[in-house]
Amino acid sequence: MTRSIAIIPVEGVGEVRPGDVLAELLLATPAGAALQDGDVVVVTQKIVSKAEGRLEAVPSDVPEALAHKAIVERESVRVLRRRGDLVISETAHGFVCANAGVDLSNVEQGWVALLPLDSDRSARRIRDALRARRPELARVGVIVSDTFGRPWRMGLTDVAIGCAGVAAVIDLRGSVDAQGRELQVTEVAVADELASAAELVMGKSSGVPAAIVRGVDPSWLRDGSVRDEIVRPPAEDLFR
Amino acid sequence: MTRSIAIIPVEGVGEVRPGDVLAELLLATPAGAALQDGDVVVVTQKIVSKAEGRLEAVPSDVPEALAHKAIVERESVRVLRRRGDLVISETAHGFVCANAGVDLSNVEQGWVALLPLDSDRSARRIRDALRARRPELARVGVIVSDTFGRPWRMGLTDVAIGCAGVAAVIDLRGSVDAQGRELQVTEVAVADELASAAELVMGKSSGVPAAIVRGVDPSWLRDGSVRDEIVRPPAEDLFR
Repeated sequence: MTRSIAIIPVEGVGEVRPGDVLAELLLATPAGAALQDGDVVVVTQKIVSKAEGRLEAVPSDVPEALAHKAIVERESVRVLRRRGDLVISETAHGFVCANAGVDLSNVEQGWVALLPLDSDRSARRIRDALRARRPELARVGVIVSDTFGRPWRMGLTDVAIGCAGVAAVIDLRGSVDAQGRELQVTEVAVADELASAAELVMGKSSGVPAAIVRGVDPSWLRDGSVRDEIVRPPAEDLFR
Repeated sequence: MTRSIAIIPVEGVGEVRPGDVLAELLLATPAGAALQDGDVVVVTQKIVSKAEGRLEAVPSDVPEALAHKAIVERESVRVLRRRGDLVISETAHGFVCANAGVDLSNVEQGWVALLPLDSDRSARRIRDALRARRPELARVGVIVSDTFGRPWRMGLTDVAIGCAGVAAVIDLRGSVDAQGRELQVTEVAVADELASAAELVMGKSSGVPAAIVRGVDPSWLRDGSVRDEIVRPPAEDLFR
């Protein structure tokens, strides 16, 4: 018997400011107060970057587009493609995304939000703080999500940029299918799928900066790392 | 108030054979019998291809790997990358994926499953059949999902290869964020996120070939098409 999964929006977090402890803000919401052991909390990059003070004032002595461009270039370790204002580049974390992950929206006018310096560590910090305040949450997972585009497919989806207490990728190697053949598909990026699932209750303008996923396979609740499990080493990448 | 979403596994579909009417098999399961108007049913490509008879015997007079390779080449309209046995190619539908979407696992020994010829139409056919049998399902959505890899990121995720009665991409252009700035992120591939969410209750070997997503935003339940909304025209693609 496979269990159902519930995706629960976390509303009422309010405006997040540098220095805020996200775990406290999350636990103070009705959904957060009802957090259960075994849940996975998905938190958007935007509020993680705000809480960590990863905000940067945009110089006002140059046109905004130019100022944005300079910040994006600085945050890029390698530019893969350019078209017009769009830059697809690789960040220091190894993420390949538009604008090096620099977030120009949902931040106060004149400011941009940078990615967390180490988003696995950001997830771990939130997880540790949740468990310190609610010791019964021994096996809670935390994912930091962001919204990325993809080549070949239109539209954006949310993916994991950091995780703690939950696998980034599960390995089905050795499993056999219903006919007893070894499975061809062996590694599933469950952290990315959890981030996408969470986005379904978030929207982009509805003030839902986090979601709780309840009912995940307990075997996924282990140490996990987006950097170690999902970021593809350039040497193994056919598209870099 | 944002609603929670539930992801419900559809168990008990049993082995699917060419000519089977998937809508009947789905409705005969306990989860399918409880299907509600406004739900989105995500059905894996594997059982859609089987029901549609998109199975092909692998010639036994050549080594299996060579036979597989010939089928993959034939199903490809353009090869993007090769490494060892791995081929990343574009299918006639415009999907870019490994092995042109040819499924070598979970099919009887000596057979492979090809992608549906028109996976939006496959979704529409399932939807029409569901509504014919259960007229109260006026606004049910159907997604056909498949498991694809991605450049730059390890692990596979499920994406939509066809949809009916549900948007592939929603457009948030014109929406403003909490600060009144127009949103930079404007198009969300909800069909892909729904497919990923559904995969969380499927696993690859657990005999769950479909899932029901309950509680999606009612505005997403409109005519949709993966081909028209998600497949990126090659001329607009920076990575082809």
